[in-house]
Amino acid sequence: MEISAHSVWQDVARIRERAPLVHNITNYVVMNSTANALLAIGASPVMAHAVPEVEDMVGIAGALVINIGTLSDPWIEAMERAMKRAQALGTPIVLDPVGAGATPYRTRTVHRLLAAARPAIIRGNASEIRACVSEAASTKGVDSTEGAEAAATDARRLAEQMSAVVVASGETDYVTGEGCVLRVANGHPLMPRVTGLGCTASALCGAFAAVNASPLRAAAHAMAVIGIAGELAAERAQGPGTLQLYFLDALYALNESHIAARLRATSQRAGG
Amino acid sequence: MEISAHSVWQDVARIRERAPLVHNITNYVVMNSTANALLAIGASPVMAHAVPEVEDMVGIAGALVINIGTLSDPWIEAMERAMKRAQALGTPIVLDPVGAGATPYRTRTVHRLLAAARPAIIRGNASEIRACVSEAASTKGVDSTEGAEAAATDARRLAEQMSAVVVASGETDYVTGEGCVLRVANGHPLMPRVTGLGCTASALCGAFAAVNASPLRAAAHAMAVIGIAGELAAERAQGPGTLQLYFLDALYALNESHIAARLRATSQRAGG
Amino acid sequence: MEISAHSVWQDVARIRERAPLVHNITNYVVMNSTANALLAIGASPVMAHAVPEVEDMVGIAGALVINIGTLSDPWIEAMERAMKRAQALGTPIVLDPVGAGATPYRTRTVHRLLAAARPAIIRGNASEIRACVSEAASTKGVDSTEGAEAAATDARRLAEQMSAVVVASGETDYVTGEGCVLRVANGHPLMPRVTGLGCTASALCGAFAAVNASPLRAAAHAMAVIGIAGELAAERAQGPGTLQLYFLDALYALNESHIAARLRATSQRAGG
Repeated sequence: MEISAHSVWQDVARIRERAPLVHNITNYVVMNSTANALLAIGASPVMAHAVPEVEDMVGIAGALVINIGTLSDPWIEAMERAMKRAQALGTPIVLDPVGAGATPYRTRTVHRLLAAARPAIIRGNASEIRACVSEAASTKGVDSTEGAEAAATDARRLAEQMSAVVVASGETDYVTGEGCVLRVANGHPLMPRVTGLGCTASALCGAFAAVNASPLRAAAHAMAVIGIAGELAAERAQGPGTLQLYFLDALYALNESHIAARLRATSQRAGG
Repeated sequence: MEISAHSVWQDVARIRERAPLVHNITNYVVMNSTANALLAIGASPVMAHAVPEVEDMVGIAGALVINIGTLSDPWIEAMERAMKRAQALGTPIVLDPVGAGATPYRTRTVHRLLAAARPAIIRGNASEIRACVSEAASTKGVDSTEGAEAAATDARRLAEQMSAVVVASGETDYVTGEGCVLRVANGHPLMPRVTGLGCTASALCGAFAAVNASPLRAAAHAMAVIGIAGELAAERAQGPGTLQLYFLDALYALNESHIAARLRATSQRAGG
Repeated sequence: MEISAHSVWQDVARIRERAPLVHNITNYVVMNSTANALLAIGASPVMAHAVPEVEDMVGIAGALVINIGTLSDPWIEAMERAMKRAQALGTPIVLDPVGAGATPYRTRTVHRLLAAARPAIIRGNASEIRACVSEAASTKGVDSTEGAEAAATDARRLAEQMSAVVVASGETDYVTGEGCVLRVANGHPLMPRVTGLGCTASALCGAFAAVNASPLRAAAHAMAVIGIAGELAAERAQGPGTLQLYFLDALYALNESHIAARLRATSQRAGG
């Protein structure tokens, strides 16, 4: 498959037209900024984490986004219930394993959630994706590769294990699943200096998955949009503070010409 | 009663002079932005939700703002205790029933809170206000009206049931109670693209209720100020990101001339 | 000891070079803004509050920042465990006693935390610092002094009781401990109109303590950097909304010339 400016744009237009409800069980740090990003692109965010209501909320949502950034036991139970309900309903799930690998609690939690239900999309940085790969698999071979190649290998493994689309974010985003590999090279070096833009990427994956039946396309389109909005924002920003705001303005004002002028994506068959 | 630029301005001046402490038990998404809005208008915000301290905190506050946006059981207990304490002290309560009607848990919670104590002001959008009307009442007749008229009917019913002032927010804000109906038509279409400006409106209702003994006037003045600050911000903003910040700047810089030049409010007797 | 522009700058350069991990157990209101401030200065923030993981997270952090702004029982337990672990590891602890004195729950909590482990730095406003002084001490004499002098007295007492560096923030920040008293007079009147800049100061104290073995220097340098970034931001800001963002831009762009041109700090021997 190819990712074209027009295919990215079609999803943006669909989000603006349908305003899909995206149910987030996410971390405290980014709730405000991800809600604003979802609103800016045209989606309708809701945050709800109480065990007595998450299944009902999933029932009216177009996508479920799970982010373990500030997890605790009651939240994990809510995440698990929401994921099971989403799976039963066929609602796409996006999982962001924030900090997996940093503490045993986070790594355990990710494996518990992956055992509860199958996400459509898993998005994290290289070390988080590595921590998601099941131990059996990750100790199978010697991980002699480093950096981008190791990240690609881990992402492919996880995609196979979970039959999910996996995004390993970095300077170039590596998107794999459905037998394909896509690389999206949009973005700006100032973006990692704003907290939660990775979490925002996961939230936008939810909005795109709500309007596109292919999680691979949804994930790639979302990553392209994030990167392009970041580039547009960086042209005006004087630092990470203003970048954060101009990024929301850019998401809101995004049009097909912006995408056509900036999209940097390549695709290949998996294993190719 | 009439709502005039001068009466709005008097309350703003009082808030700046007295810096009333507004105790918020609110949702995670908007805590930062509502605290900033309260500071920008001149009030003194505090967020406190722990059962062991909410009653003490209410004891030193000029108003209590309850917002169920990201509710969970321990928070509901704290909300209930805080509301009872506020009622005992005669401290005005503002209730924002975020998402009431979206899940049974939220609707149940709102009715539980309304049974615990009587808010001075209830502010929500049309569907949230509808979900607050007690079932007995809402099934009394056939709700044949739609849109703005249905919202007005629901708001009047709720105002009567609770002897409270009810604000149904929308393109035009409908403020009813104390035998009056006020319509405030300030605001800008970009405002709903920023998360939590509705919640901010409720928080500002708290600040105004702390300095004005009439909940009707307090609510109408707060809605006018929110709308006017949004209009001022929209003149400079290039999207929802910058709107959010310029809105705070506008609240901070607001003067009587801004209000006089922009206020769009009409009043009538209830039933008139 | 003297605080010079060069000594301040050296710490900033070290933070940017080493990107120390700062573990925050902080309040909901400021999580986003303090994470952004830590990223803007060059540190690496992590927020984690679950009892099952805080000890592990402290184990990989360069500093621990405890902020009781929106405390509740499970969080207090996590704070206590994290502090004990940090003390065992020799990792510097910064404590921000937000609202101590406002409710008995907060005052009790602060004393419980101070009994659990010794912070390297305690930073609060005058009334919070007063509430941290142990009751025995605070009732020893008659506090006839008022305002800045009373704050200085309380800070010195607390510094002695806890063998910690104490910062009493205000128009002039009073930094005491290690037998010295430093006064930092940087800052801008608009800063208190942005929520959480005090909390941000505490978080930055953590970043500086992670790269400077003297808590006194770390605290004074952090307070100078906050104040100078605020001054730079205020030159461009039109209100508290834009100040918040330009402040992050200023932290990111800060260089030695900015500091040299603006630093207003004086030192004396304690008791001198």
